[in-house]
Amino acid sequence: MKIAMLGLGKMGGNMTRRLLRSGIQVVGFDFSQDTVNQIASVNGMIPSTSVEDAVAKLDGESPKIVWLMLPSGDPTENQIKDLVPLLNKGDIIVDGGNSNYKHSQRRGAWLAEQGIGFMDCGTSGGIWGLENGYCLMTGATPEVAKVLEPVMKALAHEDHGWAHVGPVGSGHFTKMIHNGIEYGMMQAMAEGLDLLKGKEEFNLDLAQITELWRHGSVVRSWLLDLTAESLKVDQTLENIAPYVADSGEGRWTVVEAVEQGVAAPVLTVALQARFRSQDSKGYSYKLLSLMRNAFGGHAVKTK
Amino acid sequence: MKIAMLGLGKMGGNMTRRLLRSGIQVVGFDFSQDTVNQIASVNGMIPSTSVEDAVAKLDGESPKIVWLMLPSGDPTENQIKDLVPLLNKGDIIVDGGNSNYKHSQRRGAWLAEQGIGFMDCGTSGGIWGLENGYCLMTGATPEVAKVLEPVMKALAHEDHGWAHVGPVGSGHFTKMIHNGIEYGMMQAMAEGLDLLKGKEEFNLDLAQITELWRHGSVVRSWLLDLTAESLKVDQTLENIAPYVADSGEGRWTVVEAVEQGVAAPVLTVALQARFRSQDSKGYSYKLLSLMRNAFGGHAVKTK
Amino acid sequence: MKIAMLGLGKMGGNMTRRLLRSGIQVVGFDFSQDTVNQIASVNGMIPSTSVEDAVAKLDGESPKIVWLMLPSGDPTENQIKDLVPLLNKGDIIVDGGNSNYKHSQRRGAWLAEQGIGFMDCGTSGGIWGLENGYCLMTGATPEVAKVLEPVMKALAHEDHGWAHVGPVGSGHFTKMIHNGIEYGMMQAMAEGLDLLKGKEEFNLDLAQITELWRHGSVVRSWLLDLTAESLKVDQTLENIAPYVADSGEGRWTVVEAVEQGVAAPVLTVALQARFRSQDSKGYSYKLLSLMRNAFGGHAVKTK
Amino acid sequence: MKIAMLGLGKMGGNMTRRLLRSGIQVVGFDFSQDTVNQIASVNGMIPSTSVEDAVAKLDGESPKIVWLMLPSGDPTENQIKDLVPLLNKGDIIVDGGNSNYKHSQRRGAWLAEQGIGFMDCGTSGGIWGLENGYCLMTGATPEVAKVLEPVMKALAHEDHGWAHVGPVGSGHFTKMIHNGIEYGMMQAMAEGLDLLKGKEEFNLDLAQITELWRHGSVVRSWLLDLTAESLKVDQTLENIAPYVADSGEGRWTVVEAVEQGVAAPVLTVALQARFRSQDSKGYSYKLLSLMRNAFGGHAVKTK
Repeated sequence: MKIAMLGLGKMGGNMTRRLLRSGIQVVGFDFSQDTVNQIASVNGMIPSTSVEDAVAKLDGESPKIVWLMLPSGDPTENQIKDLVPLLNKGDIIVDGGNSNYKHSQRRGAWLAEQGIGFMDCGTSGGIWGLENGYCLMTGATPEVAKVLEPVMKALAHEDHGWAHVGPVGSGHFTKMIHNGIEYGMMQAMAEGLDLLKGKEEFNLDLAQITELWRHGSVVRSWLLDLTAESLKVDQTLENIAPYVADSGEGRWTVVEAVEQGVAAPVLTVALQARFRSQDSKGYSYKLLSLMRNAFGGHAVKTK
Repeated sequence: MKIAMLGLGKMGGNMTRRLLRSGIQVVGFDFSQDTVNQIASVNGMIPSTSVEDAVAKLDGESPKIVWLMLPSGDPTENQIKDLVPLLNKGDIIVDGGNSNYKHSQRRGAWLAEQGIGFMDCGTSGGIWGLENGYCLMTGATPEVAKVLEPVMKALAHEDHGWAHVGPVGSGHFTKMIHNGIEYGMMQAMAEGLDLLKGKEEFNLDLAQITELWRHGSVVRSWLLDLTAESLKVDQTLENIAPYVADSGEGRWTVVEAVEQGVAAPVLTVALQARFRSQDSKGYSYKLLSLMRNAFGGHAVKTK
Repeated sequence: MKIAMLGLGKMGGNMTRRLLRSGIQVVGFDFSQDTVNQIASVNGMIPSTSVEDAVAKLDGESPKIVWLMLPSGDPTENQIKDLVPLLNKGDIIVDGGNSNYKHSQRRGAWLAEQGIGFMDCGTSGGIWGLENGYCLMTGATPEVAKVLEPVMKALAHEDHGWAHVGPVGSGHFTKMIHNGIEYGMMQAMAEGLDLLKGKEEFNLDLAQITELWRHGSVVRSWLLDLTAESLKVDQTLENIAPYVADSGEGRWTVVEAVEQGVAAPVLTVALQARFRSQDSKGYSYKLLSLMRNAFGGHAVKTK
Repeated sequence: MKIAMLGLGKMGGNMTRRLLRSGIQVVGFDFSQDTVNQIASVNGMIPSTSVEDAVAKLDGESPKIVWLMLPSGDPTENQIKDLVPLLNKGDIIVDGGNSNYKHSQRRGAWLAEQGIGFMDCGTSGGIWGLENGYCLMTGATPEVAKVLEPVMKALAHEDHGWAHVGPVGSGHFTKMIHNGIEYGMMQAMAEGLDLLKGKEEFNLDLAQITELWRHGSVVRSWLLDLTAESLKVDQTLENIAPYVADSGEGRWTVVEAVEQGVAAPVLTVALQARFRSQDSKGYSYKLLSLMRNAFGGHAVKTK
């Protein structure tokens, strides 16, 4: 079996390596030819010099499978449009990136009109996926899902880490919710550890406690495992800026909750905590300070 | 009628002035003799040099009424204890400060054992109370409330700004909830204005809009009036630090909600927004950043 | 001056009456001819039997002004499309309903291409607007805004209740944020009153307290005025179902906050409280109950 | 080694069994003599007929160790007081229940005055602890902790599930925070699954997805394991009432956050979601419905 992988970054590169280990051939392309050459020489990937070249090197495969691991939004959108003229009816595009599920639904419908199959594949597992295997949530027709099965088995955690969850769009939808939950769990843990640290009279050792919780507690989890390992190295966090990035899925989950009319307070405030961390101006705080001064004469702290 | 006022700060001083305007005599005491002398000479208050002196100057009044406008906690607690030996059965202590209602209940019960009457009086109106009159929420027995009526009428906004809401403790309880609501309203307004400001393409004039909303909108309110006036002066808020203090009532309201087992999400997150503004370290954000790095290899922003 | 009003419901009908009182002629249309006839006979509106008829009856006005007070979404969208062939270059459509500001931006741009002027007018004031005057937040070009000035003055609260806040879209944007704040203020008040009620030992009279707060307190506001008046009639609320509807603006405000990347926790949890009230199934609660049983053996409450 | 266990319920009974398996003798007491007799006959526990009897049966042990697994609050408080006259200087009481850490601090200090050692032991692991071993967070002096080591090793998950985290009080404090995090994680998961279910067009199988996430995803955790197993049996949850109980630790965590002045929004709204589920009256919703009617004439849904 031979597929093309477009995008060989942190995720796409490792997935390529894992496929190659399982005996699946991969034609790889990336805008960085250094990356292409490196994975080709070290891991045995078939290099390509352009998307056209990559597709051409799938000749003989039927159907041709092109897997995208690109930034969501325009890069994925444009790549899909550019691919269509290069493919034949019955070929398949897999979007393994973090696209909005509504875009995947739209793209899947449009590709179906062109006779091209589509799978949206939510991919979890981070940088650990290469060794551990990934968790893959896929949306597609049963026919397309069937074709991809050997690829899924190669990528997944112990052959259980993949599933065909529903029609096109449902893979990215499921991944979006997964990430929403991830935000909530992370925030729960961060708040709890912050309170442990804040209780100065007990002078608690957060590395000890997180390690302890890994053994038999109700909160044991992979995020806890990683947190415990990191805190063993340093728990002052002196050199880390109090800034947390967020990505599409966390935001889309909150918008989804609004659209469904469903209360999802934890997922929401977890996202908003990140927004707070990104807000260096604090205009809303200034307004509150202004109001307190206006009605109560309370002193305003000046800069 | 003549009462003693202990504590002549921002609130106690203005309340004294308002009482004097209504023809009620006030014996005033404050640790700052300058303050005492100033209000005495400008406004006609009877000065005193100590608490003992203030009480002595109520001789002939029956019952003697001693009104406390002191910081909550120890200052109020200690003053009440120190007053008891100076008073006779039937005399009355009014706590007009921001005490926790549970403390007022305990103090009222203890004073009742000593034969001393007690009223807890939640006082709203801020620095505008001198001219506008205050809003007074009082807890006491009907007998004590009756005695205080002339004082209430003098202090209150147009004779409607006072009420005997229930037994001892209920005055401070009602004021606590009032402040909880105040936190929520302020935060609602601050968030909305922050979003107006954040929509840069519209380049909105927040002074214009808050002034507009004062006329016929659903959100018209006194807090909006004050906010609009302040924003006319400056809406950049460049010189204000993004720091918002909080006081006891906001915290106690959230604890009360927990004790009642009642969801009060707006009152809670409004308080927590202030906590955020006070947190210069951001340890929880650093933890989140650490976790993102640990599972996904996402870059950590360093200081 | 003569304008057309399409949609004579709770808002459109009262606005028509207020315009007529000020000497502005109104040609009115509604799908209910009974409504048309009633306002025509009682208030002197010029009746019309169709949109075409209404526009025709503006002949001689230059520009023609057609004001829409229709449900947002498709009804407004379709009406605007249908109007264009009936209008001439330079005529003006005003959308006074609760449209999403992004739709107003799109519609305004499209109408500009057809040579038709557009104003988006956020209208606050509810059923009280007829007597009190409305609060009108308008987005338009300066030219269009100038033309509408006499209409605004007639509708507005004491000639201060209207403003031209910015370009097309900014009127509905400002109204959207206004409603977001309204949600937060309402929720703050509801939570506080719920806690007052929940303190059974004090047996507080919510009608008394809300009336009291109207006089000199920090939380005094129009919403408090209305709440106090309602609670005087009944504070058991026995016959009211615990169900709160929500409308577009509350939801759009939260989505806007996500898109801006701004934390707006109060506006968000206020919206989510309404979602909770609408959720009769409680699937998330059932899941929690299931989990507690699974890890701790805690009994599940059965239906 | 021989210790006494007072309280043989779901937790105390299983801990007794696990100790016996490790060769530690246990003298057990419970108000239910049936329970005492059953564990004695099946598992080889030494039965006792009263607390006095249980302590007497420790004669010869030095120090005597009495482990309490009782409901927090009065039952634990009273038992500790009643035990003191039965013990000698140097004997040790362990509170393995869910006491408030402030009570543990107070009790530890008081017992120290009587010459009795004290350990507060937060115990996690639920009904699975018997087989898996428990996670034990202990607060005590180093001397007391040393004495308890063999007991901890017997109870803990693979000898890693216990730690001496700090002085008296810190064990229950750490357990309290653990439970706060647990609330947040559970709520995050419940919200996410609720949104999966709410997306009806995808008709997702929650049992499939939760099982999938156990393999390689970022949210993999013990709570997810249990949830997945439960959902395999039934995902309609038709027979479960939408009611979630809460216990002391969740509430105390929120109060702790208020006292520290630390924002813990996820832990807080997770608790409040449970409060909502317990609120069958919905008075705050009724108030909102009343307000909407008052300002906007919006229909009130009646019961």
